[in-house]
Amino acid sequence: MNTNEPFIGMHKAELDTPALLIDLDKMEANIAAMANYFSKVNADLRPHVKTHKTPIIAHKQIAAGAIGVTCAKLGEAEAIIHAGIRDVLIANQVVGPQKIARLINLAKHSEIMVAVDNAQNVQAISEAAVAKGATVRMLVEVNIGMNRCGVEPGKPALELAEQIRRSQNLSFEGLMGYEGHTVAKPNRAERNTAAREAMQRLVDAKHYLEKHNVAVSIMSGGGTGTFNITGSIPEMTEVQAGSYVLMDATYYNVEGVGDHFDCALSVLATVVSRPHPNRVIVDTGLKVLAKEFGIPQPVGLNGVEMTGLSEEHGTMQVSDASVSLKPGDKLEILPTHCCTTVNLHDRYYGIRNGIVESVWNIAARGKAQ
Amino acid sequence: MNTNEPFIGMHKAELDTPALLIDLDKMEANIAAMANYFSKVNADLRPHVKTHKTPIIAHKQIAAGAIGVTCAKLGEAEAIIHAGIRDVLIANQVVGPQKIARLINLAKHSEIMVAVDNAQNVQAISEAAVAKGATVRMLVEVNIGMNRCGVEPGKPALELAEQIRRSQNLSFEGLMGYEGHTVAKPNRAERNTAAREAMQRLVDAKHYLEKHNVAVSIMSGGGTGTFNITGSIPEMTEVQAGSYVLMDATYYNVEGVGDHFDCALSVLATVVSRPHPNRVIVDTGLKVLAKEFGIPQPVGLNGVEMTGLSEEHGTMQVSDASVSLKPGDKLEILPTHCCTTVNLHDRYYGIRNGIVESVWNIAARGKAQ
Repeated sequence: MNTNEPFIGMHKAELDTPALLIDLDKMEANIAAMANYFSKVNADLRPHVKTHKTPIIAHKQIAAGAIGVTCAKLGEAEAIIHAGIRDVLIANQVVGPQKIARLINLAKHSEIMVAVDNAQNVQAISEAAVAKGATVRMLVEVNIGMNRCGVEPGKPALELAEQIRRSQNLSFEGLMGYEGHTVAKPNRAERNTAAREAMQRLVDAKHYLEKHNVAVSIMSGGGTGTFNITGSIPEMTEVQAGSYVLMDATYYNVEGVGDHFDCALSVLATVVSRPHPNRVIVDTGLKVLAKEFGIPQPVGLNGVEMTGLSEEHGTMQVSDASVSLKPGDKLEILPTHCCTTVNLHDRYYGIRNGIVESVWNIAARGKAQ
Repeated sequence: MNTNEPFIGMHKAELDTPALLIDLDKMEANIAAMANYFSKVNADLRPHVKTHKTPIIAHKQIAAGAIGVTCAKLGEAEAIIHAGIRDVLIANQVVGPQKIARLINLAKHSEIMVAVDNAQNVQAISEAAVAKGATVRMLVEVNIGMNRCGVEPGKPALELAEQIRRSQNLSFEGLMGYEGHTVAKPNRAERNTAAREAMQRLVDAKHYLEKHNVAVSIMSGGGTGTFNITGSIPEMTEVQAGSYVLMDATYYNVEGVGDHFDCALSVLATVVSRPHPNRVIVDTGLKVLAKEFGIPQPVGLNGVEMTGLSEEHGTMQVSDASVSLKPGDKLEILPTHCCTTVNLHDRYYGIRNGIVESVWNIAARGKAQ
């Protein structure tokens, strides 16, 4: 028997907690809204699976028009490719002999593509690809202002691209730049200015390569906060937005994002104690809710604020003592960071009209290698 | 074949990353040091498994003298009881019909004990125990100043204890109070004062119950930061310290704790990029390292500071450009919160003299229900 089977058909309020819920209608509307946007611009959508980590959701995104997916880690790419998706970008550096061996193995079962920013890494991947008779597609990652990974635009990007073109069993596809320092700026005008300034560096890098006779087919970047900024730049061929599919309180409050996408993700909690009229304790702590973007708050409850998260407890202050929450009552918490919250759970309960319609194992949870 | 088998005998530097390492010599010394302390005082040790979440480590603690273990969640207790440990305290409220049914089932296979702070919860557990012919041991949780769960000392604690004594198939064992607001105060004198003040409330509650002819057999509380404060109070019968077994940078810097216990836990990382002489990027981000107690730092590297953690990346600033870190190099990171960091990993690599001696699946990882 499928161990998830007993949950199907239950009302969500019957689920034991903590439980990670997806409102399926909202998720489908988010997928449709993003697909609709990318049907009208030059760029395509290559959604980031680091958010949901789950093959069936990736397949839904592709069915709606996405050209493939983006992964953060090799382990995520394995989970996705094993589920039949072939056009996968690992938008990070794959470093070290064990990981390069796994990358090459994936190239035998997919059109895997990987970001690089280092000459020795390019050489090591080429040698492994030759030994196995595989071909690996590559994007040069360019630092466009986030100051994390990536070579600088101009000559460093050109030199790495030329090395890839000279190397056996590698295919230079283009450039990648992530404007991660801009995607969550709440003010739309500021975000627009910062993101365009960042992406211009990627566009300049492309022109520099072309001036030196290096063709750039793929221009990849973007996130949920910049989907219709980066997505509207004519030189960009694909956008890696991920969070839009599930959303969270942080992105919902980014001006111009909450208009398009609704919060489909929540964590169901149970009140375990109400030791004082002004204090409610729930069973959702740091082991099921991320808080690096702020303490998550309950949905649809006035006068109730989550003020602290310890490992296994959420502490809520109740300013209105007539709020009726008592031990055993359930409530939903809206995450402030969907990606890291999902990583704390083993499965989603897919809810429609209040009823559990599907239970999806989060296949790439914890796949940090 | 055991999927962990290929790792045994490897040098730790050969492990792919991110990987969670235990220095076995240090862990064993921590277990011995704590056991030695509790061999000399009235109180016993009931170590908290929320830290390590792994049956074999719990068995080692018991073999060294611990009377049983403490769990945070029912799912942790199931993992531990299934591994043959019988004296288990769930130091939190078990609320709701599904969880109460699981609690009662565990009572058929163990001497399970649970914390309570609510009359309806006591009644529900009693009714379920009667229906199943099981007996559940109970501690009344008393709020001793942390202001999370727990009834107030005095009359509320007495009334709940008396209810338990009147209820069928329940056994009132005593009182529990967690001085969690004091355990990590770095200054020993301040910690001592605050912890003694908190524990006095529990002692007063005991005396109040005894004055009303309610015998209190068990007095449970304490953490790693107060093991030899709370552990030295004559009325306390057991201490729930957990972090001491693995330790982390936060507890190591609590005055009087680092003297007794060494840091046995680390996360092995790989440098994935060095795009600038002053910037190193490693493959350990928020999905493998908790940061609620501060950003973890590399072990034994001068002039290198981790300044940021995003989902999959750690960003390090290198003040000494002659530091030789390059892509592919490995380094160890010292967690700042062992419990939540362990919860992000599926297995430990047990290391002795640099070699992988054992691989332990973290059986209770993610068991948040």
